[in-house]
Amino acid sequence: MSGDARGRFITLEGVEGAGKSTALDTVREVLEQAGLPLLITREPGGTPLGERIRELLLSHEFTEMADDTEVLLVFAARAQHLAERIHPRLAEGTWVLSDRFTDATYAYQGAGRGLPAERIAQMETWVQGDFRPDLTLILDLPVEIGLRRAAGRSDPDRFEREARPFFEAVRACYLQLAGEAPDRYRVIDAAQPVDQVQTAIRNTLRAWLETLS
Amino acid sequence: MSGDARGRFITLEGVEGAGKSTALDTVREVLEQAGLPLLITREPGGTPLGERIRELLLSHEFTEMADDTEVLLVFAARAQHLAERIHPRLAEGTWVLSDRFTDATYAYQGAGRGLPAERIAQMETWVQGDFRPDLTLILDLPVEIGLRRAAGRSDPDRFEREARPFFEAVRACYLQLAGEAPDRYRVIDAAQPVDQVQTAIRNTLRAWLETLS
Repeated sequence: MSGDARGRFITLEGVEGAGKSTALDTVREVLEQAGLPLLITREPGGTPLGERIRELLLSHEFTEMADDTEVLLVFAARAQHLAERIHPRLAEGTWVLSDRFTDATYAYQGAGRGLPAERIAQMETWVQGDFRPDLTLILDLPVEIGLRRAAGRSDPDRFEREARPFFEAVRACYLQLAGEAPDRYRVIDAAQPVDQVQTAIRNTLRAWLETLS
Repeated sequence: MSGDARGRFITLEGVEGAGKSTALDTVREVLEQAGLPLLITREPGGTPLGERIRELLLSHEFTEMADDTEVLLVFAARAQHLAERIHPRLAEGTWVLSDRFTDATYAYQGAGRGLPAERIAQMETWVQGDFRPDLTLILDLPVEIGLRRAAGRSDPDRFEREARPFFEAVRACYLQLAGEAPDRYRVIDAAQPVDQVQTAIRNTLRAWLETLS
């Protein structure tokens, strides 16, 4: 790819305990080996203002937060992320890898909290127009395994405190999204041993990179 | 009006220096004299979470805030305001008087910042459905007079730092909104001496209350 080409936008999604940190490292490694300039970022957050919004979203302080408010705050952070970091980096040819993006809104606020997907789609169009990730890796594993892995963490945030049915709905939503647009999504079996998950990510990503050249 | 009737929702709008604080007191006085239970609130804010969002909106820290982000934060605070305070109070029969509401979004983020009114209307519908104020009082005065009055205040916020064309656009937008829906809006000449402004508000409000009974 030539130096003045637009960068590609890759997102990583997964339920709690799916191993996103390790997966981010693996994606980074593959892209760096391919000589691709990369920015790694996350949602909600990714900018100073976005991180302040993230604090509000995860805080235990706002137990009365309405579902609509939650979605609007998520998209407020996202709008800033797009304007201040994602779009400028992609335009200059840097690749961007985000730990979560709008699929997480469909999964957590939509399927998890029960907000109609149609309402989230309206907000997605308002904020993003037709901008979507080029590739989304979904780390999938049974909720029980994920929750067991995540249980070791101290002080769960406002989302991590949710009960199992919430995460079952989140998982099912991710799988549904992947099923509806297999060109954009790749589902990785994250219940395997870590080295096998890493191998799966490497192979998947390299195969996808091949299709671009 | 019977005790189990829904409350009415009144909003107060105006450019900087228009005298909203005094006007709020005058509206309160008229409604209290009429024996109407009243909650006075404000936007952005009105709830603990909304006030935290207000801090982000007014802070000098976020000079890079994208226009879309600003609108989403305003509506996030509004969604919380509606869910946690406005709708519950109106349902129990309390009247609600808000210092600014969605007309301010059309005026400041729309006309002021240049965001298309159509985009704000989409967000308004997403958040409010067809809920609108029953009455909106617009305190109108020439921008020059308003800015001169407001100039005495120390440490202007991120909006108060805007220049005169911004406030000209804000004022024009308020007048346009009022012109398009005269049933809902009343324009008060706020350039008059304070006691005449108060008299105008009292007369306007009492005449409107008459129409309800």
